[in-house]
Amino acid sequence: MATYREMSKQELEALLCDLQKEYEGYKAKGLKLDLSRGKPDKAQLELSMPMLDVLSAADVLAGEDGTDARNYGVLDGLPEAKKLMAQILELAPEQVFVGGASSLNLMHDCMGLGFLHGYPGGNGGWYKEGKVKFLCPAPGYDRHFSVTEHFGIELVSVPMTGEGPDMAEVERLVADPAVKGIWCVPKYQNPLGLTFSDEVVRAFARLSPAAGDFRIFWDNAYNVHDLYPGEGDQLLNLMDELKATGKEDMVLMFSSTSKITFAGSGISAIGCSAANMAWVKKHFGFQIIGYDKVNMLRHVKFLPDIAAVKSHMVKHAQLLRPKFEAVRNTLEDNLGETGVASWTNPRGGYFVSLDILEGCAVRTIALCKEAGVVMTGAGAPFPYGKDPEDKNIRIAPSFAPLGEVKQAAALLCLCAKIACVEKLLG
Amino acid sequence: MATYREMSKQELEALLCDLQKEYEGYKAKGLKLDLSRGKPDKAQLELSMPMLDVLSAADVLAGEDGTDARNYGVLDGLPEAKKLMAQILELAPEQVFVGGASSLNLMHDCMGLGFLHGYPGGNGGWYKEGKVKFLCPAPGYDRHFSVTEHFGIELVSVPMTGEGPDMAEVERLVADPAVKGIWCVPKYQNPLGLTFSDEVVRAFARLSPAAGDFRIFWDNAYNVHDLYPGEGDQLLNLMDELKATGKEDMVLMFSSTSKITFAGSGISAIGCSAANMAWVKKHFGFQIIGYDKVNMLRHVKFLPDIAAVKSHMVKHAQLLRPKFEAVRNTLEDNLGETGVASWTNPRGGYFVSLDILEGCAVRTIALCKEAGVVMTGAGAPFPYGKDPEDKNIRIAPSFAPLGEVKQAAALLCLCAKIACVEKLLG
Repeated sequence: MATYREMSKQELEALLCDLQKEYEGYKAKGLKLDLSRGKPDKAQLELSMPMLDVLSAADVLAGEDGTDARNYGVLDGLPEAKKLMAQILELAPEQVFVGGASSLNLMHDCMGLGFLHGYPGGNGGWYKEGKVKFLCPAPGYDRHFSVTEHFGIELVSVPMTGEGPDMAEVERLVADPAVKGIWCVPKYQNPLGLTFSDEVVRAFARLSPAAGDFRIFWDNAYNVHDLYPGEGDQLLNLMDELKATGKEDMVLMFSSTSKITFAGSGISAIGCSAANMAWVKKHFGFQIIGYDKVNMLRHVKFLPDIAAVKSHMVKHAQLLRPKFEAVRNTLEDNLGETGVASWTNPRGGYFVSLDILEGCAVRTIALCKEAGVVMTGAGAPFPYGKDPEDKNIRIAPSFAPLGEVKQAAALLCLCAKIACVEKLLG
Repeated sequence: MATYREMSKQELEALLCDLQKEYEGYKAKGLKLDLSRGKPDKAQLELSMPMLDVLSAADVLAGEDGTDARNYGVLDGLPEAKKLMAQILELAPEQVFVGGASSLNLMHDCMGLGFLHGYPGGNGGWYKEGKVKFLCPAPGYDRHFSVTEHFGIELVSVPMTGEGPDMAEVERLVADPAVKGIWCVPKYQNPLGLTFSDEVVRAFARLSPAAGDFRIFWDNAYNVHDLYPGEGDQLLNLMDELKATGKEDMVLMFSSTSKITFAGSGISAIGCSAANMAWVKKHFGFQIIGYDKVNMLRHVKFLPDIAAVKSHMVKHAQLLRPKFEAVRNTLEDNLGETGVASWTNPRGGYFVSLDILEGCAVRTIALCKEAGVVMTGAGAPFPYGKDPEDKNIRIAPSFAPLGEVKQAAALLCLCAKIACVEKLLG
């Protein structure tokens, strides 16, 4: 079969005619499907229901150091919660600050801390320095970018390569002292699903930014979220690499149990060096006395260590894998020979990323919507919501039931084909 | 008996000699007591242990509108949680935004929102306006003041009268457009324990600040925290009064269940007008997807309505009342005839406030410490931690066991007497 680019105008017109007929057929079905939401589905949430029974009225709610989990206090979390989150982040417990139900909130607060008071090594609050900037590898996670924009910080796009952010570009950009940090999802990146290569991690560890308080916001949201347990991607430990270069203060790591236990009712964490930890504790102490320690205790009783976490994540993988494979097979079957599409085959995380012909993403997503399939807005994974090439589409297969994922993916392929043929026809 | 001021130098010297002997006796005991912490005690926390059993693995964790409480979403809280917190705040459910385990965190975030983006009616972020100021009725809650100071906002002290803040002074100060708001704990105020009079609440409702986005931060932390249930103080509903004056946007109310269920593992709330609610939702949406809805459901199942809350609070009152009465009796017995001390007799809340001779608070608290009794630091309830008259001492009777409260209060009285006699002797 010829790729779309090899077809004549007449062939494309005939193809478009067929595709439109098929599309009208879909539209007549009145579908209501959704591939936009990076949320666990009900079956995944059921996996953690036993957590509701690990604490009861008969228990003594004391932490291992005797702290009454029901009362005020302990800003950085119960010791056992620090241990658990340290294992998830691959850090030492003393490098971990345990927060509430949202790691996004911790990241926002860390951005706020920079904005208000800066970080050790800098000149104080960024807002006093006039225009400051943050690097945004794109496509990336839209909420990272919008948090940053909310502080009035300028978003600077950095291209993603197959191994992570374009580090030559990062090195060039951090020579600007107004550049205060960079966002990263180093493992199973949102939305590409790729894991940063060892070389990229080492390049981060060698980085010499002009800003003394430049910080890598390392959102390791998917570190234990393998789709193929035992065969998952391996991410080099950035903290170890930074130890080697003597730049441990350059990173703030984040994680949460939102996609391990309950989304929005889990526990979250910041991982960082001793100097950053002292800074975070000093400043967070103004905003809160301590996060929910009863929920920390509940998590630790349900998931006592990393082995328990990993066997729990195997169950998630069993539920998620068929959906990811359905998306992959549908893309392969429908777009494989068109020559106008490429996509990622992640081995973990929550997203598949589809690239189609330049200038066709907005049109594709509009066609999807018209036929009853909600996709993440075109451009969402880019700074300021604008995909410069209008070609990227984020697919989130986790939330919908498997049958709906298949149907929605097939319709997405159809819409992509229509948009691409239209484009080629000019 | 003569008051201290009526005594001759010789009488005072003899008295001091006796007091010092008594003090040495206490010191020899090697006491370790603490009246500094406004925390519930273990018996109070036990009251809420049944809350750990209201949700189990067998339950369906759906909100009344079908929302899966275990998944992402619903920024302003489950409808049933909004209803519960609305009853506690005496507002309509749509005026309530339900947050996480800390109302201090919500207040910090609302201060941050003002700092970054201002509020409706203003000129945008306060940080762009240069120096801005916040009114701090004093003595007040130290954490309110320190949150404000953390943003670099200037603290302006306002004297407290027996009815609330000195409203003539407040009216005078809000003519300055740099004054962006005022902190209030309107019921059983921390540390005075008094409730704002109707006249004071009405004066707030009539306030015409120069700053278009001036906000009253109305921390109604103790609205259901009566020590004498059924005979508690009555606080006029500020939102109703503001409705009458057409100034509903002027207030942000706060509350939490921290001193109802578990301290630091409860749910919290912002109460505000429709315009403020839209503003808060728009901006908080950048920092978090939603707060812990499983914990909201847990609270609503344990405390379905205000009647349940009130009968639960009766049990708290039974535990707290003897401690407050012990403090009152000890103060009366020991300082009643000295003429150098006065104190509050709160009918709710968590604090008793003791005023002694000017210039004697620091010395009293140092003497307490030396004999093994920890008190809240002198000056803590004042802006920048400085009591201009050095006379105020905050007493927190809730956390220590009753016997220790009695002993600590007695020793506090002794130390106060020593400090005052020393002062009078020059």
